[in-house]
Amino acid sequence: MSHDLHDFFYPKTVALIGATDKPAKPARAILENLDHFKGVVFPVNPKYTTLLGRRCYPSLQAIPEQIDLAIIALPAPLVGQELERLHEKGVRRAIIISSGFAEAGEAGIRMQQDLAERTKRYGIRVVGPNALGLYNTENGFDSFFVSRERVSRPVPGRLSIISQSGAIAVILMEALTRDGIGMAKAVNYGNRLDIDDADALDYFRDDPQTHAVAMYMESVGEGAKFLRAAKAFAAKKPLVIWKAGKHELGAAAVASHTATLAGTYGLYQAAFRQAGAVEAFGFDHMIDAAKAIALMDYPCVGNRLLIVTNGGGMAVAASDQAQQEGFIMPRVPDEVRAKLDIAFPAFFVKNNPIDLTGSAKNEDYETALREALPYYDAAIVIVLMGSTTVTEEATGMIARVCKENRKPVTCCILQGLGYTQEAMQALLKQGIPVYPSPERAVRALAALRGAVHGKEGCA
Amino acid sequence: MSHDLHDFFYPKTVALIGATDKPAKPARAILENLDHFKGVVFPVNPKYTTLLGRRCYPSLQAIPEQIDLAIIALPAPLVGQELERLHEKGVRRAIIISSGFAEAGEAGIRMQQDLAERTKRYGIRVVGPNALGLYNTENGFDSFFVSRERVSRPVPGRLSIISQSGAIAVILMEALTRDGIGMAKAVNYGNRLDIDDADALDYFRDDPQTHAVAMYMESVGEGAKFLRAAKAFAAKKPLVIWKAGKHELGAAAVASHTATLAGTYGLYQAAFRQAGAVEAFGFDHMIDAAKAIALMDYPCVGNRLLIVTNGGGMAVAASDQAQQEGFIMPRVPDEVRAKLDIAFPAFFVKNNPIDLTGSAKNEDYETALREALPYYDAAIVIVLMGSTTVTEEATGMIARVCKENRKPVTCCILQGLGYTQEAMQALLKQGIPVYPSPERAVRALAALRGAVHGKEGCA
Repeated sequence: MSHDLHDFFYPKTVALIGATDKPAKPARAILENLDHFKGVVFPVNPKYTTLLGRRCYPSLQAIPEQIDLAIIALPAPLVGQELERLHEKGVRRAIIISSGFAEAGEAGIRMQQDLAERTKRYGIRVVGPNALGLYNTENGFDSFFVSRERVSRPVPGRLSIISQSGAIAVILMEALTRDGIGMAKAVNYGNRLDIDDADALDYFRDDPQTHAVAMYMESVGEGAKFLRAAKAFAAKKPLVIWKAGKHELGAAAVASHTATLAGTYGLYQAAFRQAGAVEAFGFDHMIDAAKAIALMDYPCVGNRLLIVTNGGGMAVAASDQAQQEGFIMPRVPDEVRAKLDIAFPAFFVKNNPIDLTGSAKNEDYETALREALPYYDAAIVIVLMGSTTVTEEATGMIARVCKENRKPVTCCILQGLGYTQEAMQALLKQGIPVYPSPERAVRALAALRGAVHGKEGCA
Repeated sequence: MSHDLHDFFYPKTVALIGATDKPAKPARAILENLDHFKGVVFPVNPKYTTLLGRRCYPSLQAIPEQIDLAIIALPAPLVGQELERLHEKGVRRAIIISSGFAEAGEAGIRMQQDLAERTKRYGIRVVGPNALGLYNTENGFDSFFVSRERVSRPVPGRLSIISQSGAIAVILMEALTRDGIGMAKAVNYGNRLDIDDADALDYFRDDPQTHAVAMYMESVGEGAKFLRAAKAFAAKKPLVIWKAGKHELGAAAVASHTATLAGTYGLYQAAFRQAGAVEAFGFDHMIDAAKAIALMDYPCVGNRLLIVTNGGGMAVAASDQAQQEGFIMPRVPDEVRAKLDIAFPAFFVKNNPIDLTGSAKNEDYETALREALPYYDAAIVIVLMGSTTVTEEATGMIARVCKENRKPVTCCILQGLGYTQEAMQALLKQGIPVYPSPERAVRALAALRGAVHGKEGCA
């Protein structure tokens, strides 16, 4: 790939400028995290000759090899000068993690202008400043200055993350890790001096490791460029975007946070719709939708929804939410009902929702789904684990029938303390997204449906 | 107390009719759970002479003592006749857990009509049928047929639960247990043959153990009676209600679930508003609001909100939500800002939100809250535990300052895997409700505010 970001994600030689072994320092965390990188790392700091078992170089110039990428972790006032050294050494890419630029008032704005002029003059591409930078599960490249002890990293997988907030990138990664869901790449571009949201979308569109993107934004880099990139991306792969700073108070907080203008929320909404992206409406929705598009790969999802439950109240809540999300819930066809009447006791409810009641056994879920699912486009399966007649093994049956039918399903697993967690993990291992409330299960399925809508092969 | 429900919650002698030791049978779970009851239990079943170490009686009549309350766990067709035996024995209260009545079609409806006639004729008050019945943390009385192995019970506390769905009552109890939050009493009235939602509200209004109520309903028993009871309750204590079956699909699911009419959602909303109850908009909101009103006892909460964070993006999301919930976020007063300018580095953001950035230390939270909180009505405190500079000890500082100021605060704790859970538990132990997303923390605080609004001493 010839895209500029490719060389950021796949450098062979990396210099870490401002490397240190001082605990709690960002550059210390980066140095440790680069132990997992399948490339060569050159720590740079005149104060050390070795650092955490690596040889440390007094300057960039002292490194005997060509450097593909520099990670700059110096105090803000020293960064401009360092760019000159990059130029002299022929380094054409830098991740500037240092903060204290445009987000930090007058003096910071002037320093960032200086960086902008220098990078243009020297022809250096930049991610940052005030950024975590990049994480790539394929080669272990990782400039995120959060220790793996505190924040573990997801395994390789289908989803990539673009986030204007470093913290939210990290939280998303952690949510994926907790659920054993894989990730391809992540980028936090910070103050967006050069590489921006649109560049990331362009790159991920053609990145074979990336099958879907979850994105957090407070403000857009360049409106027209972003819309073009989002459109091109979403025509090919699912895209979920959470825009924060929607209302007056949130917009004011954006100004403090990323020193940008949140803009008119209505314009963003129109742009997302036009681009074919799905909008996430908050933190939970973002994570829930990301999990659904990370786990499920369906070319197209219709709106005919089946709900199977062993708790009637939960199915009521799911049905309410289903209606709000534009699903329809046709009755169970007569021929299926006839079969369920034979298979199930009289007090099971054989409508849609199919309510297996508190007496449901594992096999009842299998029977209900096997008979009814072929007549629907997707399903919500709710299991209250507080009932002694269902066990973790129900999850295997549910996952098998859904996969055999090639139908997307999200689950809601509730109650039962330890049992709940085990059942949730069992479902996730089988690639079924699972949520702790009925509404969240429905919204995640709706997000998946929205995200594949309009893709090639889906009207 | 002379209220009929009092004698249900505080019986001295209880007969369990249909007692058994067969695993996975409801009556087995009830018998085991009654081990924790500080009263006398008489199992009744002609097939046994002893059951789980207790003497078992062949019939109600064979019990040598007067029985305050019977729990009936017989197949539906046998319940009517058993009521006659209760009458002969002089038992005036029954919890009928048996299902297969109005919720199970024609034959069930006829059987339920028979029950209604008999109870009126005999003067027997009934909770149920098709109900879990009652749970009382004060004396351990417990007719909920879910084993403690699967679903543990909360410790004694301030919140009581009224739920039309047994499963949702149990899930709420479990959510409280998981967070170490106390509960007073719970009632699931099932098919509502006699005791209904309004009776429960009337009783809890004067119950000294109950300081607030969380309620789930799909349909109302008697509209006018409910509105009167809700108004009287909410004038005295906080009331949160989740109404499910709002939309067409949800209403259809209600008809299958509790064999009742969900009614027009708009009417319910108007009634809740008129009554001064806070409406929960879904499962998570219900649990979040219940936790807030269970933990925090404030006579009145104003709308001037302070947000303190170490992650800017999270504060943006919280600010967006705050605006939707009717909070205002006045700037930090100049005199406070002057103090913060001295205490904090230049790159901390001293607006509202106060953003302590990824460099925040424990003490910084204490400083920010100590200086600014006196000028606000309430606060949202967000802690990303992924940062190596904050530890669990921050939670003690946060809790202390908030309590010293007598100001309600909800926290959002995120990131940091094991650290997150430990910090959340630490906050809960100190009586601070904590949530896994910024929006949920804001909505829970707003629910508390709504629930105390209009109470005595709060305009």
